[in-house]
Amino acid sequence: MASDPKIEEVLAPLRVAVKEQGDLVRKLKADGAPEIDVKKAVNELKARKKVLEDKELSLAPSVASFDRARMEDLLKRRFFYDQSFAIYGGITGQYDFGPMGCALKSNMINAWRQFFVLEEQMLEVDCSILTPEPVLKASGHVDRFADLMVKDVKNGECFRLDHLIKNHLEKLAAAKDATQALKDECTDIVIKLDGMTKDEMAAIVTKFNMKSPITGNDLTEPIEFNLMFGTQIGPTGLVKGFLRPETAQGIFVNFKRLLEFNQGKLPFAAAQIGNSFRNEISPRSGLIRVREFTMCEIEHFCDPQLKDHPKFENVKDVVMTLYSACNQMDGKSAQQITIGEAVGSGLVANETLGYFMARIQQFMLKIGILPERLRFRQHMGNEMAHYACDCWDAECLTSYGWIECVGCADRSAYDLTQHTNATGVKLVAEKKLPAPKTIEVTEVVPNKAALGKVFKKEAKNITDLLAKLSLSEVDTIGKNLADKGEHALDVNGTEVTLNGDMIAVKTTSKTVHVEEITPSVIEPSFGVGRIMYSLLEHRFQMREGDEQRGYFSLPPIVAPLKCSVLPLSNNAEFVPFVKKISTALTSVDISHKVDDSSGSIGRRYARTDEIAIPYGITVDFDTLKEPHSVTLRERDSMKQVRIALDEVSQVVRDLARSRLSWADVEAKYPKFEQQEASSK
Amino acid sequence: MASDPKIEEVLAPLRVAVKEQGDLVRKLKADGAPEIDVKKAVNELKARKKVLEDKELSLAPSVASFDRARMEDLLKRRFFYDQSFAIYGGITGQYDFGPMGCALKSNMINAWRQFFVLEEQMLEVDCSILTPEPVLKASGHVDRFADLMVKDVKNGECFRLDHLIKNHLEKLAAAKDATQALKDECTDIVIKLDGMTKDEMAAIVTKFNMKSPITGNDLTEPIEFNLMFGTQIGPTGLVKGFLRPETAQGIFVNFKRLLEFNQGKLPFAAAQIGNSFRNEISPRSGLIRVREFTMCEIEHFCDPQLKDHPKFENVKDVVMTLYSACNQMDGKSAQQITIGEAVGSGLVANETLGYFMARIQQFMLKIGILPERLRFRQHMGNEMAHYACDCWDAECLTSYGWIECVGCADRSAYDLTQHTNATGVKLVAEKKLPAPKTIEVTEVVPNKAALGKVFKKEAKNITDLLAKLSLSEVDTIGKNLADKGEHALDVNGTEVTLNGDMIAVKTTSKTVHVEEITPSVIEPSFGVGRIMYSLLEHRFQMREGDEQRGYFSLPPIVAPLKCSVLPLSNNAEFVPFVKKISTALTSVDISHKVDDSSGSIGRRYARTDEIAIPYGITVDFDTLKEPHSVTLRERDSMKQVRIALDEVSQVVRDLARSRLSWADVEAKYPKFEQQEASSK
Repeated sequence: MASDPKIEEVLAPLRVAVKEQGDLVRKLKADGAPEIDVKKAVNELKARKKVLEDKELSLAPSVASFDRARMEDLLKRRFFYDQSFAIYGGITGQYDFGPMGCALKSNMINAWRQFFVLEEQMLEVDCSILTPEPVLKASGHVDRFADLMVKDVKNGECFRLDHLIKNHLEKLAAAKDATQALKDECTDIVIKLDGMTKDEMAAIVTKFNMKSPITGNDLTEPIEFNLMFGTQIGPTGLVKGFLRPETAQGIFVNFKRLLEFNQGKLPFAAAQIGNSFRNEISPRSGLIRVREFTMCEIEHFCDPQLKDHPKFENVKDVVMTLYSACNQMDGKSAQQITIGEAVGSGLVANETLGYFMARIQQFMLKIGILPERLRFRQHMGNEMAHYACDCWDAECLTSYGWIECVGCADRSAYDLTQHTNATGVKLVAEKKLPAPKTIEVTEVVPNKAALGKVFKKEAKNITDLLAKLSLSEVDTIGKNLADKGEHALDVNGTEVTLNGDMIAVKTTSKTVHVEEITPSVIEPSFGVGRIMYSLLEHRFQMREGDEQRGYFSLPPIVAPLKCSVLPLSNNAEFVPFVKKISTALTSVDISHKVDDSSGSIGRRYARTDEIAIPYGITVDFDTLKEPHSVTLRERDSMKQVRIALDEVSQVVRDLARSRLSWADVEAKYPKFEQQEASSK
Repeated sequence: MASDPKIEEVLAPLRVAVKEQGDLVRKLKADGAPEIDVKKAVNELKARKKVLEDKELSLAPSVASFDRARMEDLLKRRFFYDQSFAIYGGITGQYDFGPMGCALKSNMINAWRQFFVLEEQMLEVDCSILTPEPVLKASGHVDRFADLMVKDVKNGECFRLDHLIKNHLEKLAAAKDATQALKDECTDIVIKLDGMTKDEMAAIVTKFNMKSPITGNDLTEPIEFNLMFGTQIGPTGLVKGFLRPETAQGIFVNFKRLLEFNQGKLPFAAAQIGNSFRNEISPRSGLIRVREFTMCEIEHFCDPQLKDHPKFENVKDVVMTLYSACNQMDGKSAQQITIGEAVGSGLVANETLGYFMARIQQFMLKIGILPERLRFRQHMGNEMAHYACDCWDAECLTSYGWIECVGCADRSAYDLTQHTNATGVKLVAEKKLPAPKTIEVTEVVPNKAALGKVFKKEAKNITDLLAKLSLSEVDTIGKNLADKGEHALDVNGTEVTLNGDMIAVKTTSKTVHVEEITPSVIEPSFGVGRIMYSLLEHRFQMREGDEQRGYFSLPPIVAPLKCSVLPLSNNAEFVPFVKKISTALTSVDISHKVDDSSGSIGRRYARTDEIAIPYGITVDFDTLKEPHSVTLRERDSMKQVRIALDEVSQVVRDLARSRLSWADVEAKYPKFEQQEASSK
C-alpha cells in the first residue's frame, strides 16, 4: 500500500529488523539446519513482523479515528445483532442476528450466490451438519483440530493457554517493581506465543508459577482440547458424531455424485453455504471468533496438471494488493500488482488460484469493503494448514487489526486421497490419454472359494482389503508367497495367514485409454460473519459536526432495506399516498420500511440512516397537489430531488439494482432544498 | 373434497362408524365421564378414522397410479438429494441436497421470504442453533420432547416401541395359523397404538412376549428417549446444550428486542429460516422424517383480545379445503369453504389464524402444490401439542398418505409466560388503557441496608426474588409477617428468614395509563423438506406413451434452473451463439444450463425435463442466418416457437417471473414444428 513518507521513516528500522531475520530463516533452511533451529528463527521472525505490523496499524488514520464503542452501541440499539439467550445470562461466542443484521446477512449471501454460483455455474450443494466420526477422522479434524488449555485443578475452570500466558505476563510487565529485564522477557514471550509448542508453553507456566487468575488454584498440565462439538447420532449412544467444523467435507464425500452430475468432466466447482461450529475455549472479539458461523465455500476440482482458467483473461488486469510470503520475510509492505503479472511472475501459483483471488476481490468491493483496507496475504510455509499447499488470505483491516475473511487455498489432492484411503472408494476422475497405452498391472487375485472355506464370513473383509492394497504392499505379498509360501495380513487388527491356494499375485498387460487422476482442489472459503463485521466497520460513518448521528453507508445491494417511506407528519391525507408507494415498491420487489411514527422528519431520517437505508421517500403537502410528487433522498449525501409519485418506485428499483446512479437522478430531477432539521 | 358417488357408497358405512364413535366421545365428555373412559373412546375414534382414511386413500386415483420407485430413481440419478456420507456407509435420516435439490430448496426459501417476510414486512431473525439447557427446560422440550423405545438387553440395539409393536403384530396376524380372533386383536391394537401410554404399550410387549426381532434377545422396559441432540458448550463440559428442535424458541427469547425494534407496538410478526435437529429413533420415509431439517417459522405476536387482521379483507374470498375436528368426529369429509365464511362461523377461531391459513395456501399453490392434494386439518382436542390452544395443519396428499407440511397453531401466551417464569424477565407489551385508572399495588418493599448487613452478597438475590413474586406470594408474606413477625423465603434452594426490619408489605395507589399484557402467538411453521417432497410427488409426470421419460413439471419460480441452451449439434459455428445467449441470460439473472454434450436433441431435452427446466433454447442451422433466431420450447407442452435471438433472453426472463404466460408467447411468435426425436 502507498504509505506516507513520514510513516515510512518510523517503520524503516522495523522493516530492516524483519528482513535480517527473514534472511536468517532462508539461510538456515538452505543450509539444512536442524528443525528446532529453523523453528526458533521463524518464531523470532513472526515476532518482528508483529512489531512492525502493530506499529503500522497504530499509525493508520482509519484505525486511529474509529470509535468502536459508538458503533457497537448502534448495532445493539438497532438490533443488528446481539448476544444469544441474553435473558438467560447469555452464552459467549453466540450471537443472534436481528432484523437488520439478518437482512444484511441474507443480502450478502444472495449476492454471493449470484456472483459465484450462478455466474460461474457452480454446483451448489446443501449437506448434513451432523457428521459421523470416521469422516472427520479421515479429514484430520479428530486428531488435529485442537487448541491448548489448562484447567483449575479444583473447580475445573478452563483457560485457553496462550491467552492465559499473555494476560499473566502483561500484568507482570506492567507491575511497578518490574525490572527492565523482566519486562523485556515478558514482551518477548508474548510475541512468540503464536508459534510455541505445548512443551514450551508448559515450561513458561512452570517458570512463572502461574495459577488460576480467578481462584489462585493450581493449574493442570496443558491439555489439547478438540474444538469440535461432539454428540451421539441415533438412540444407542454408540454412533459418535460431530457438528461439522467446516462445510468442505460435505462436498468431498459427494465428489463422485458431483463428478457424475457434471458428466464426468473436469474442471468443475461445487459450492456450499451453511453453518459450521467450533467450540472455542474462550470466544472474544465479537463476531470475529464465535462458536457457530455461516460459511460460503467453493471447492474447484481440476486436473493437477492443468490449473489454467478459461476466464482468467477477463480478470488479468485487476489490480490487487498482494502481501507475499517473500515480502513478509523481507519486512516490505504489500505491493499493488495486477493479477495477470502476479500469475505471470509465479508469485501466485496458477491461473485458477489467481482467478479466484481476483473474483474474491471483486465480490468484496461489490458489497462495500473498502479497497484500501483489503489485502491478500500469502501464508508462509510454516503457517499453512495441514491440508494446504499454497494459501492466500483476503484480509480486512479493522480495529482488531488485519483479520482473515476469506481463505483461498490450494488443498491439492489431500482430502480426496484421505477419504479414498479411509473408505476404499476411489475418488478420482478419468482423464483421456493422448494415445492408448499398454500397462502392466500387478495385483493380488483372491481364490474366493478357498478363502470362503477357511475364513467364512471374514472372507469378504479380506478380499475387500486385498483390492485396496498399494503397489508396494502387493510386492511384499508376492515376495512372501515366493519365499515362505504364505503372507500374514492384518485384517482390522486380527492377523490372518494366507497361502498360495488362497491368493496369487499376477501381472497382466492391459490397454488403457484413460488414466485415473485424483483432482486438485482450489478452495475459496468465506467467513460471512467476519466479512459482515469488517463491512460494518468500513461503512460506519459519523455526520460531520454531529457525532450523535452515526450511520452505515452500506451499498444498496446489501443494505437491509432499500427504501424508507415517511409521511412528513401524521396528517391523515398522507396515508393513501404512503400506502400507494408501499404497494408500488412491493410490486417491484423493493424491501422498504414505512416510518409514520411521530418525531421530526430530520430525526426519522437519522433513524433510517442508522439502519443503512440508502433511499428515502417523503410524502409532504406538495404531494397532495396534482401532479402528485414526492421527495427522494440519498443517505450518504443527504441530497434530495423532487420526483413524480408514479415514477418514484421505478427509480428506486433502478438505483437499488445499480442500473441508475444517484448522479443520474440528480441530473434528471429538480433539486429539493428543504432543511432536514426543520419539523412541521 | 368432491368425491365420486361410487366411492362415497363404499365409504358410507365407514363414515357412519366414525360418527357413532364421535358422538359417544362427545357424550362422555358432556357427562363428565372418567378420563380413562374418554381416552379409550377417543382411541377407538381414531382407529375408525384411520380405517376410513386408509380406504379413502386406496381409492384416490393420484395415489394409485403414482410410481414412487421410478421417481426416487430419478431423484437419485440426477442427484436432487441422496443419503449423506454414503461412501462411509451412510447415516439414516440424513440427506445431502445435490445441485438440483439445493437450487429447488433455495428457490422455495427465497419465494417464502418474498411472500411472507417482505410482503408482510416481518422481522426476520437468525438465531443460534446451539441452545443452553435452561431455555429448552422452560419451553418444555427437556421434559416432554421424547419418544418411547426399548433396547435389546444384550447388545443395546434400540427400537422405537410403536414401530416394534406394529411390525410384530402385523407379522402375527399374517401367519398361516393365525385365528380370526388373533387377527382382529392385532389389527385393533395397531390402529390404537398412536394414543397409547407407556404402560399400555409395556403391557402389550409382555402379553405377546416380544423379543428383539434381530437377535431374539429380551427387551428392556420402555424408555422415554429425548429426541434432542445433546452436547457441551465450552471446554469445561459443564454447560449442557442441545441442538434446537425448532427455531421458534430463538424468537421468543428475543421478544423484548423485537418489540423494541417495532417501537413497542403490537401486533408484529417475526420470522426465522434455519435448521433444526431431532434425534429420531428410527428415521424412515425419506425426506419426511429426518434428523436435520430446514424450517421456516413465523411468530405473530398480538394482543390476545384483538386477533382481527387488517389484511383479512384481501383473502376473505379464498376457497379452502378445511377438515374440521367436528367433521373428523362425524366421519364427514373435508369441506370447501371460503376463509371468510370459516372465520365468520367460528370454525376458524379468529381472523389472524384465518389470514395465515389463506396465505399458507396461496404460497403452497404458488410454488406448485396441487390444490386437490392440499387440505387444512384441525387438530382434535386430544392431539394438540402441550403449548397450543388451536391448531390447523396444512397437509399434502402423497404416496405416504396425508402428511403435515405446515402447522398453523395458536400457541397463546404459553412460551412467553414460560420464559418469563424461568428468567424473571417480563416478556410483555404495554397496552394503552382507554382511560387512566387508579390501582392498588401491593408489593414487598425491601430494606436494602438491613438485608445487606445480614445477607451480604446474597442480598441482591433476595431483592431480585422479592421483585418477581406473584400477588398470592406477596399476600402470604404479608400474612406471615403479621402473624409470626417473619417469613421463610426459598432462595435458590436455601431457606432464609426475613423479618419486619428487612422487608415490609405495602399497598399504594398508582395512576396507570397502560396495562401490561402477555401477547398471544400465532405460529405458522413450515417444514421445507416435507413441502419439497410433496411438491416433487405432485409434479412428477411421465410422458404419455413413453414411461422411460419421467420429468418434474415444477413452476418456474421454484425450478432449479429456468432455462437450457442447447446447440443442435457440435458444429463449431453454433458456439458463439450459445455463448451470447448464455451471457444475455446471466445479465437478466436467469439461471441456466448449457448442454453441449453429444446425444440427439430429443435426448437432451429429456435430460433437461428430468431436472425440471421449464424453458429450452435451441441454436440450429437457421440461427446462423440473418436475422438470427432460435427456438424456444416449453417443458410441459413440449411446444416450440421461433423467436429472434436478441429477444429471447427477455422473453425467458418474463416467463420465469410470471410476467408473461406461455399462451402469450405462442400467440405472439410463430410455431416451430420440428420433431424432438429427430437427430441431426
